[in-house]
Amino acid sequence: MKALILHADHLLTMDAENTIIANGAVMVGSDGRIAATGTAPDLMARHPGVPVRRLKDRLLMPGLINAHAHSGLLRGTAEGLPVWDWLQQHIDPMHRVVSAEEAEIASRLCYAEALLSGTTTMVDMWRHMDGSARAAADLGIRAVLVPYVAEHPEHDYFETLDANEALIQRWHGGADGRIQVWVGLEHMFYATPQAWERCAEMSRRYEVGFHTHSNESRFDVEETVRRYGMRPVQALEAFGLLDAHKVLLAHCVWLSDDEIDILRRRQVGVAHNPVSNMKLASGAAPVEALLACGIAVGLGTDGEKENNNLDMFEEMKTASLLAKLSKLDAAALDAWSVCRMATIGGARSLGLDTQTGSIETGKMADLIALRTDTPRMTPLLGGAGGNLHHNLVHAVQGGDVDMTMVAGRIVVDGGQLLSGDLRETIALANEAVPELFRRRADWLRNHGSANALHRDPAAV
Amino acid sequence: MKALILHADHLLTMDAENTIIANGAVMVGSDGRIAATGTAPDLMARHPGVPVRRLKDRLLMPGLINAHAHSGLLRGTAEGLPVWDWLQQHIDPMHRVVSAEEAEIASRLCYAEALLSGTTTMVDMWRHMDGSARAAADLGIRAVLVPYVAEHPEHDYFETLDANEALIQRWHGGADGRIQVWVGLEHMFYATPQAWERCAEMSRRYEVGFHTHSNESRFDVEETVRRYGMRPVQALEAFGLLDAHKVLLAHCVWLSDDEIDILRRRQVGVAHNPVSNMKLASGAAPVEALLACGIAVGLGTDGEKENNNLDMFEEMKTASLLAKLSKLDAAALDAWSVCRMATIGGARSLGLDTQTGSIETGKMADLIALRTDTPRMTPLLGGAGGNLHHNLVHAVQGGDVDMTMVAGRIVVDGGQLLSGDLRETIALANEAVPELFRRRADWLRNHGSANALHRDPAAV
Repeated sequence: MKALILHADHLLTMDAENTIIANGAVMVGSDGRIAATGTAPDLMARHPGVPVRRLKDRLLMPGLINAHAHSGLLRGTAEGLPVWDWLQQHIDPMHRVVSAEEAEIASRLCYAEALLSGTTTMVDMWRHMDGSARAAADLGIRAVLVPYVAEHPEHDYFETLDANEALIQRWHGGADGRIQVWVGLEHMFYATPQAWERCAEMSRRYEVGFHTHSNESRFDVEETVRRYGMRPVQALEAFGLLDAHKVLLAHCVWLSDDEIDILRRRQVGVAHNPVSNMKLASGAAPVEALLACGIAVGLGTDGEKENNNLDMFEEMKTASLLAKLSKLDAAALDAWSVCRMATIGGARSLGLDTQTGSIETGKMADLIALRTDTPRMTPLLGGAGGNLHHNLVHAVQGGDVDMTMVAGRIVVDGGQLLSGDLRETIALANEAVPELFRRRADWLRNHGSANALHRDPAAV
Repeated sequence: MKALILHADHLLTMDAENTIIANGAVMVGSDGRIAATGTAPDLMARHPGVPVRRLKDRLLMPGLINAHAHSGLLRGTAEGLPVWDWLQQHIDPMHRVVSAEEAEIASRLCYAEALLSGTTTMVDMWRHMDGSARAAADLGIRAVLVPYVAEHPEHDYFETLDANEALIQRWHGGADGRIQVWVGLEHMFYATPQAWERCAEMSRRYEVGFHTHSNESRFDVEETVRRYGMRPVQALEAFGLLDAHKVLLAHCVWLSDDEIDILRRRQVGVAHNPVSNMKLASGAAPVEALLACGIAVGLGTDGEKENNNLDMFEEMKTASLLAKLSKLDAAALDAWSVCRMATIGGARSLGLDTQTGSIETGKMADLIALRTDTPRMTPLLGGAGGNLHHNLVHAVQGGDVDMTMVAGRIVVDGGQLLSGDLRETIALANEAVPELFRRRADWLRNHGSANALHRDPAAV
C-alpha cells in the first residue's frame, strides 16, 4: 500500500470538537493509518511527493460503526410479529437447519451491503462464523464476530462456547487485526449458570468482549423478573456476566434507573437499534438518559430480518425521529449526538475508539466519501451555522456513499464493490434461500413449532 | 411518442388484488397511457410490431404519489423546534422575503429529487407558483400545485386568493393535463371568515381541490378549541371549508372519533406525513383507524425542511415503523396497506385514482423501475408467500429507482435525470440560499421575531 492524500470539498473529522475542514485532506500512510489531516493546500505543501486523489463534490468522513447486526438471509420473510413469537416461528427454526455454506453466503451479502452503504466496522452475531471471518477477510470490512451461543438443553442448536473458543483461537486478531472475535450469548435465558460463568471467564482470559441481547421487550423484563426476581441488567450483574473483559448489550429499551446506574458504573456499552425496536414494537430506548450519564452508546441496524436493511444512515435518521417522537420534543437527541453515536460513540461502545471512529492522526484509515452533488445534500452550508450534520442525519442515505476505505484499502469506489463479486453473491443468496426454507418447513413439520420457551416458560 | 412495451422481471400492478406478474410487461401507448398489461410473452405475441425494452433485474411498479410536500431551500437549517415555534423563527420570515426566482429554483430542485426517487405525482404547497408550474412542465412530473394562501392582516406576506385564482386560470389542466392547480390555505388561522367562504366557493366554481394543514400538533387542536370552541375538523366543517369540491387535509395527527367520522362522511382525503410528524414531535396519526373506516389516506414527505428529504420509500418505511411503535404492535399497518397508501391510496386521496396510482389499462403510464440486483432486495421471493411488498416497504430506498416514466415520457433513466440539468439546478440552489438567508436576517433584525401568533394568540 502506498501513501495517498485524499482531498475532499469537506472533511468531517468527528474529533472531540466535531471539527469540519473545508477543502480538507487526509494523508493515508502505507500502513493503512491516518498519517495527517488538515487543509488540502497545507497537507500537499508538507508532503509534496505523495499522490493526491481529488474527491470533488464529496464529503470525507469516518466510516460508520454498526454496533449490532446479524448476517442473515431472511429479509422480508419474517414479518408482523413481536420479538418472542417471531423468534419461535421464524428465527429459531432457521437456526436449527442453517448450514455453514448458507451462513457464509449470508455474511458475504451483509458485509457487501454494509460497505456499500458506508459501514466500515460491523458487530455481527451469527452462526458458523469461520465463513463470516473468511468473508470479512476477503471483503475488507472491520468485523467483530460474535457467535450466537446457547448452552442450554432447550437450545442445543446454536453455537457452543467450545466453538466460540475455537473461533477466538483461529481468528481473533486476524486479517491484520481487522477481525475480532468476542464471546457471544443469544440471551441470558439460553444458557445455564455454568455457561454464564464460562462466558465471563473466557472473555477475561482472551481479553475479548462479551455481547448479548438485553431488555429488548417488556416480555424480556417481565420474564426475567419472574424467573430470577431481578430485572435483566441486575441479573447480568448478579450472575457475573458484567465481570467480562468488556461488555456490549444490544437494545436496552426497558431500563430502570437502577439498571442505568449499573450500566454506568460497570462501563457497559449499549447498542441502540431504533429501526428494529420500532419494527418489532419493542419500544423506545432512553438514549438521551444513557448519553447524559456518559454511557457509550453506539447505533446498530440489527439484522436483515429485523430492519430490513443494514443502512446506518437510515438508522441515524430513525434514532433522531424516535427520540423526538417518544419524548414529544423536537429538540430531543440533536444531530451531532446522532453523528457521534454512528461513529466515535459506536467505536467507544466496542472499546475500539483508539483505532477507529474518527479521522485523527494515528487511527486506522476507515473513511467514506459521500456525494454532495445530490438534491438530498442541497443546500450545503459550511461554517459554524452550517447544515452538514443535519443533512447527514436526516437527508443522506446509504446509496450516497461513493467510496469506502477500510484500513487504507479502497473496497468501494464509484458506488461499486471492488473487493468481492456482488452479482455472484446475490445469485448465490437467491439460490440458497428456497432450500433453506424447505429444510425449515420440514423441521417444523416434524417437531411442532420450535422451542418451549414461550409456550411454557416455567419448564425452562 | 411511439408505443413501447416495457418488460421487467416483476410487474407490481397495485390493482385491487395487488397482483404481481412474474416476467411481466406493460404496453405504453402513443398517447402516454397504459394500453395493455400481462406476461411478457403474451403481450409481445399480441403486439408483434411494438418495440420492447427489456428491464432486466428490475421491478416495474406504479410511480409513487407524494400527497403532501412543499418545495423549499431550507434543508437542514431549521432544526430542533416544535411546529409553531419553528414556523415563527424560521419559516414565516422566509416567506416574507423569498423571491419568485428563488421559489422556482426550489421547485426545480424538489421535483428533480422527487422524480429521481420514484415519485411521479406530487402535491406541492408553495409560493410564486408560476415558477413551479414551469418547473413541472419542463421536468415532466405530475403536479398538484397549491399556493400557500393567507388572507389575514397578520399574515399579509403569503399568496392571496386572487393570485391563487389567477394561477388556476393560467395553469389548471396545463402540460397536457399533468398540472392541476388547487385552492390552498396555509392554515385556518391564517384566514378570515370571508376568505374561508371564498376558498370553498372557488374550489367548487373551478372544480378543483382544496388543501390545508389540520390537526398537526396538540397546540393546533388546543388553540382551535380556545378560539372557536370546536376541534379543527369540526371547525372546518362549521365554517364551510369541507363544502369545497374536494378536500385534502395534511397531517390529521390528533383526531377525535367525531372528527374521524366527519372525515368519513365528507369523504375528505388525508395526507399522512410520518417523518415530519416524528421530526417536529407532532405525534402519531391514527392511520389504521382512518383506513378502517374507508377514508382515503395518502403518504406525504412534507417539505425538505421538515423531513429532510423527499424520499417516498423512506416515508413508507417510517409509516410502518411509526404505526408499530405507537401501538406497540408489530402487526400494525401491514406492508400491503403501506404500498397502497403510497400509490393508489394516495391517488384516491387526491381524486386522481382514475388517472394514476396503479398499472391498469387506460390509466396514464406513470411507472417506475426499481433495481432488484442489490443486497437490499436480496433475497427476492415471488409467488403467494413472497417478500416483494415487505422489501418495498422496509428495505428499498429512493436511490434504487432506475427509471421513472410520467405519462409515457421517460424522465429518469439509469438513475439520471433526463428532463432537466440537475447540476445547474443544484448550483443555483447553493448560490441562492445565502442571499435568501441574508434577507431573512435583515427582516428579523428590523421587525423582531416574525408574527404575533404564538406570542399573543388572543390578538389574532
